[in-house]
Amino acid sequence: MDKLLSSDSVPPMTTGRRDLRRIHAHPDNWYPVAWSRELRPGKTIGTRYAGLPIALVRPREGGSVFALEDRCAHRQVPLSKGTVKGDSVQCCYHGWAYGRSGRCIDVPYLGKGKLPNGVRTYPCREQDGLIFIFPGDPEKAEAQPLPALAQVANPAYKTRRFGRTIKCHYSFMHENLMDMNHQFMHMKQMGEMKPRFLGQERTPNMVEARYSFARTGGKQPIGEALIFGQKRDNSEKYAHRDVMTIRTVYPHQTLSIRTGDNDPVMDLWISYVPQDAKQLTNRVFGLLSIKRPGIPGLLDLAWPFLTAFTERIFREDREIVEMEQEAWNEQNGDRNQEIFPVICNLRELLAECGLPARYDTPVDATAAEDIPADVPEQANI
Amino acid sequence: MDKLLSSDSVPPMTTGRRDLRRIHAHPDNWYPVAWSRELRPGKTIGTRYAGLPIALVRPREGGSVFALEDRCAHRQVPLSKGTVKGDSVQCCYHGWAYGRSGRCIDVPYLGKGKLPNGVRTYPCREQDGLIFIFPGDPEKAEAQPLPALAQVANPAYKTRRFGRTIKCHYSFMHENLMDMNHQFMHMKQMGEMKPRFLGQERTPNMVEARYSFARTGGKQPIGEALIFGQKRDNSEKYAHRDVMTIRTVYPHQTLSIRTGDNDPVMDLWISYVPQDAKQLTNRVFGLLSIKRPGIPGLLDLAWPFLTAFTERIFREDREIVEMEQEAWNEQNGDRNQEIFPVICNLRELLAECGLPARYDTPVDATAAEDIPADVPEQANI
Amino acid sequence: MDKLLSSDSVPPMTTGRRDLRRIHAHPDNWYPVAWSRELRPGKTIGTRYAGLPIALVRPREGGSVFALEDRCAHRQVPLSKGTVKGDSVQCCYHGWAYGRSGRCIDVPYLGKGKLPNGVRTYPCREQDGLIFIFPGDPEKAEAQPLPALAQVANPAYKTRRFGRTIKCHYSFMHENLMDMNHQFMHMKQMGEMKPRFLGQERTPNMVEARYSFARTGGKQPIGEALIFGQKRDNSEKYAHRDVMTIRTVYPHQTLSIRTGDNDPVMDLWISYVPQDAKQLTNRVFGLLSIKRPGIPGLLDLAWPFLTAFTERIFREDREIVEMEQEAWNEQNGDRNQEIFPVICNLRELLAECGLPARYDTPVDATAAEDIPADVPEQANI
Repeated sequence: MDKLLSSDSVPPMTTGRRDLRRIHAHPDNWYPVAWSRELRPGKTIGTRYAGLPIALVRPREGGSVFALEDRCAHRQVPLSKGTVKGDSVQCCYHGWAYGRSGRCIDVPYLGKGKLPNGVRTYPCREQDGLIFIFPGDPEKAEAQPLPALAQVANPAYKTRRFGRTIKCHYSFMHENLMDMNHQFMHMKQMGEMKPRFLGQERTPNMVEARYSFARTGGKQPIGEALIFGQKRDNSEKYAHRDVMTIRTVYPHQTLSIRTGDNDPVMDLWISYVPQDAKQLTNRVFGLLSIKRPGIPGLLDLAWPFLTAFTERIFREDREIVEMEQEAWNEQNGDRNQEIFPVICNLRELLAECGLPARYDTPVDATAAEDIPADVPEQANI
Repeated sequence: MDKLLSSDSVPPMTTGRRDLRRIHAHPDNWYPVAWSRELRPGKTIGTRYAGLPIALVRPREGGSVFALEDRCAHRQVPLSKGTVKGDSVQCCYHGWAYGRSGRCIDVPYLGKGKLPNGVRTYPCREQDGLIFIFPGDPEKAEAQPLPALAQVANPAYKTRRFGRTIKCHYSFMHENLMDMNHQFMHMKQMGEMKPRFLGQERTPNMVEARYSFARTGGKQPIGEALIFGQKRDNSEKYAHRDVMTIRTVYPHQTLSIRTGDNDPVMDLWISYVPQDAKQLTNRVFGLLSIKRPGIPGLLDLAWPFLTAFTERIFREDREIVEMEQEAWNEQNGDRNQEIFPVICNLRELLAECGLPARYDTPVDATAAEDIPADVPEQANI
Repeated sequence: MDKLLSSDSVPPMTTGRRDLRRIHAHPDNWYPVAWSRELRPGKTIGTRYAGLPIALVRPREGGSVFALEDRCAHRQVPLSKGTVKGDSVQCCYHGWAYGRSGRCIDVPYLGKGKLPNGVRTYPCREQDGLIFIFPGDPEKAEAQPLPALAQVANPAYKTRRFGRTIKCHYSFMHENLMDMNHQFMHMKQMGEMKPRFLGQERTPNMVEARYSFARTGGKQPIGEALIFGQKRDNSEKYAHRDVMTIRTVYPHQTLSIRTGDNDPVMDLWISYVPQDAKQLTNRVFGLLSIKRPGIPGLLDLAWPFLTAFTERIFREDREIVEMEQEAWNEQNGDRNQEIFPVICNLRELLAECGLPARYDTPVDATAAEDIPADVPEQANI
């Protein structure tokens, strides 16, 4: 009877000296925390970054969105349950009010002279339908530019916004997308596609992987035909013709597909925002831009098919990364045996650019369960 | 960019030297644990006090209710799943039987001479539709009187019994009711009411707060008109005419409304009984007495409206105190910035009269979740 | 006021020096982990033994079932989500493939020369509709015979297969079945039956208890009449006529009923397989063989009644053992006051033959909740 070592007895895989799933996303970056359409004028909503509760406030009269700690200074109930009045938000419980600066500006039953402490604020910006905050050192926010968001502002493209909360560490998401050998998993959706690794690049805050593909079996799905603007058979003519470039530009990720030197036929920007304090869940904000083909209106007509196609792909990815997280929870650490060099580089990047978790205690298996199960998926635009 | 301190970096608010939410209710008091109507003759039901499982037993032939530890001495399964026989209860599993004294009086498959140990008992009394136990030192029970229960025995009043389990420490309940500035939260139900603080009193086991009110906006709700026995407009004539007195007479609470020196138009007795061992959930037992107006039958006719009105108020209170508890769980401690003197006094009273939790370990966020979600609300009488 | 000790202040019951509920089942035994019918040719399913995830693989072309650790060596996702190809299983994510020996035999995007480590295997056998694994030292598997499985292979009997996952330590199951004084609990199903203890036996790996019964009240249920092949009244004629023999032959259990020296009218084999790492849940695999009566087809006709009857009994047992486990969780240890000598012997056997839990940390009340609630009951055969 042949007996191999159990994966539990394999020494844990570490990146540098740390378990990658205990590395926190670096807060000195802009992270999306809501879609603009979620927050109507004169309203406030609650959102999260890595366990921090955040109240986003949009004044009715055209002022820009601002972000406060989502706990009243008085009794810590969410300010996002309160009421927006002009440029301030009033707590729903005893009516304490806070301005854009986080200062407490009114306690209805108290003289004006002796107002208590206020709440923390976060630098906040809105662009192309996304609301970003800068959770780290606010002094560094100004110097840090917002990321480029696919082709969302380019009229030659149509962009789908998508995302939901996924119960895994953000690093599993980066590795999933960059390792195109997982194309194997999408065989039912895409047919048999053989990836060829073309090369990689590494800079201090970036890893890039390039692939081409050849169809070795199955029919081209409609969703894919839409992306390329043409139907293709399995002949040599189309094999390895397009180049897919995947980049992690810390902390976000992009994927583009080009045929020759033309503009990309597809351009994806995607961000994985830690939700809970242990960062074992993330909320995805994705922008998928597809180049409009020559025939006007065709892409709009075909949009529901493309949406359904990408949703099926995304569901398979979600299921597998959540299974990876479950294994990590049960094994209480990373037992990966990664052999693909670009993924080893990506892991190194994520470890170097991130922050070790402050409290490196063993994570119990229920940690990821504390998060509300399913955030409803965003509607398409 | 203005940055204030996060509430996590504010030093925790302590009352004396302890976190108020880690102070346990003092067991040397009578606490209600069930409504009389829940326990029919010849039956037994299971209830809880602060994690202690309690079997209440009502003999069929007129004997008084008694209270046993709700674990068979044999294999610790609930005696409340068993059968009442005369003045004893027989465990459902192997048939061990226990008398009113807690002694094991029969093991069906064992000789009578060598009976095993029995189970703990609790002093138990029944009054005005409530069953009370004394969870602490039984020697002290006799000397401790039962509390006065609103106007439940007064035919000039009609009394509503209400309550449900709420996922928060009992102290949040006391603070919620005594700080009438939270009237702000009930604006939708009550219209705009401006409270005026009239004064307070403090004795070793009591804090009292007095308020009057003026309507500054909105219409008087029907429920309120019923309580005062008359419709009122927003004129000066009614402003600050009634006095509301709220008392915590440890460990219970009362609220009464008087117009002049007359009998109260409304009289509330309310108790918050810890359910789990960490005392982060409580079951409310409330008795709300309304003075019958001159026209006979009017109050009975209007009762459903009054019930619905008070339920809506109570639901808003429940939601906010559960949010306070959630914040405490996440912040792992009390970050309150309390500035209202009578509430500061109330906190001091609750801390002084209570007991520090024996095991003062950090409470994890799931603690309050271990409790069965919703105990169905008691029907009105 | 009489006050007895609370069960919390009774010293914990230990067997030798250990809490019985912290003793793990000994892995050097064959344990059933699936019904044969659950695993079709060319398929793989995931199962568990004491927290170990196990992929069972049945090749399409007649090879025997084999068992691998259910985690891909690459990224630890379940191999049981993969695809069976010939005598190997291919991971669903990146396509790594493993043979019967656990060795990694293919990584589609890697040269053949440098294959990575594989996964652990478990000795695996299939008999009479059950798939067994040997979770302990594989060197010892060969020498250890499979248990005899009731009368499943005997055409004179009809056998029902049943089972589900139960949220308690396996030892509660053994004690429940062997202590026939719990007949008291089944009074509603069986009428009043008085057990008489006839004697016991103890060998190093076996405890046997023998009982007879007399009906003292109620009518004989149909299910029972079917088992005995005759209707019986409550007369002396039938009292204490049959002998019930219950054995724990470590780690499994049997129960048979005989009338005189004849073949048993009923023969039960039952196994309680730990599911989670703390072994506070178990999955039951039961084989209940009933002797066919003289009239051909009668037993088949009556089978649904017998099934419903045994299910009701089994449900009562499940509810009570889960309550025992809940009490143990809350009291954080065993407070049993066991006085029945054969059960004391059984506890000793289970403690001596088992293994102390490696990590003897206090078990929190939610431990047993981590297990998926209800595994659907197996269909009858």
